[in-house]
Amino acid sequence: MDRLSFWKEKIENRLRELFTPQEPRELFEAMSYYLFQPGKRIRPLVTVAVANALGGSQEDAITVGCAIEMVHNYSLIHDDLPAMDNDDFRRGLPSCHRKYGEALAILAGDALLTYAFEVLSRDGVFEELSPKEIIKVMNVIAVKSGISGMVGGQALDVGEETDLELVNRKKTASLFEACFMCGGLVSHREELLNELEEVGGEFGLLFQLTDDILDRDGFYTLLGEKKAKDKAENIYTHLLKRLKELLPRETEEIEALVEMVYNRIT
Amino acid sequence: MDRLSFWKEKIENRLRELFTPQEPRELFEAMSYYLFQPGKRIRPLVTVAVANALGGSQEDAITVGCAIEMVHNYSLIHDDLPAMDNDDFRRGLPSCHRKYGEALAILAGDALLTYAFEVLSRDGVFEELSPKEIIKVMNVIAVKSGISGMVGGQALDVGEETDLELVNRKKTASLFEACFMCGGLVSHREELLNELEEVGGEFGLLFQLTDDILDRDGFYTLLGEKKAKDKAENIYTHLLKRLKELLPRETEEIEALVEMVYNRIT
Repeated sequence: MDRLSFWKEKIENRLRELFTPQEPRELFEAMSYYLFQPGKRIRPLVTVAVANALGGSQEDAITVGCAIEMVHNYSLIHDDLPAMDNDDFRRGLPSCHRKYGEALAILAGDALLTYAFEVLSRDGVFEELSPKEIIKVMNVIAVKSGISGMVGGQALDVGEETDLELVNRKKTASLFEACFMCGGLVSHREELLNELEEVGGEFGLLFQLTDDILDRDGFYTLLGEKKAKDKAENIYTHLLKRLKELLPRETEEIEALVEMVYNRIT
Repeated sequence: MDRLSFWKEKIENRLRELFTPQEPRELFEAMSYYLFQPGKRIRPLVTVAVANALGGSQEDAITVGCAIEMVHNYSLIHDDLPAMDNDDFRRGLPSCHRKYGEALAILAGDALLTYAFEVLSRDGVFEELSPKEIIKVMNVIAVKSGISGMVGGQALDVGEETDLELVNRKKTASLFEACFMCGGLVSHREELLNELEEVGGEFGLLFQLTDDILDRDGFYTLLGEKKAKDKAENIYTHLLKRLKELLPRETEEIEALVEMVYNRIT
């Protein structure tokens, strides 16, 4: 088993541990529906990989990554709603509101977002993080997923903002910025936050670009295949260079994640 | 000016300070729309009143109360949505989704909930609270507003749960439990949390009962006017007794809030 599969299994197990059945049962099922469909778990993997490259606590990185995965999945539930993207299907299955109804899908998203903060503030959930570092982790996640980050990007998208890079930097890249920054925080390296934010933004933009090229959407439509692929290659090359400068050791995992994202279009 | 008006003005000012204009502008306006309509601010007032009765930090109580007010207002935005209560008006004005569209109303609720946690985790926002106490405050608010609290109650309501008291204990009373518990936390009295939770639940139930009697809805419909008023009187009497036992000093403010709620139906 390669390293990323090893961490992915740990992430799956931690998600199950953190997310124990609660009443009301149907709300809990709607909250779990996307979260436990098979997925790449790329956000928690990035968080763990950055922590490994900085010698941080792997256990704490997994827990933070799981909370970010909850935030990501709440955003998918709300994105799919009729008033938003109006998607009837996700990953070949009925979308959350098609399965559980629109009201419960709205509430499931709300509860999943809230649950991420419940987990992060739970007594004894972290091994090495100090209370101050825990608060900083929560602040990074809140800032990057709120009006100045992910939800802000979704609002720009809904408002038909024409600057596609701005929309994606907020809507998609913000949460990857949080992953990189939290990887630094669980490694007690707050002084690296600005640089980690920057490379996280590049990683997120690369992720969205390759997604768009695969789906012939977004950047692909705007730039055409050639220019979109050139842009992706430039970000890919620059990102690998920056990661080598920034991270002192064991960069294999984060590099493997960059390759995994980039190789989808090569 | 009476004491409650004095605190209410402080709460209004703090809300304005904490909630500074941000981009995207339209999302910020949708987030602000309910939050800055004239309201009772009863949740932050309760938080401050409990802190005063326990000798806690008034400034910190105001800040926590403002975060709870944000959570309350996000829930109003989502409650009004077509898939939920489908309300076109609130306080005589168009509801948030009628004014800003359904997509932006969903996102405004999401961003407002996230913003509450952003404020609570912001560097230097508290004067006296220790990092551990800040984390506990966030945990109480997350638990009481998530699946085991407010959102859980809304899901029961949507699912047509027939136990009206259970629905209202979660949907309405949970957030008042959080107010009482956080009033205790800003007073460094964690050992009182269970008892504060209990009286907070009674306060919340009294609030919902009197609301229902005024609106001829809920408990009024279920029990009839006489039984609903008797139930309210019983809770009112018991609550005042418990508050006197539990809180050592300056209980005038919290008692005035209980009177204010109860007197609406007398």
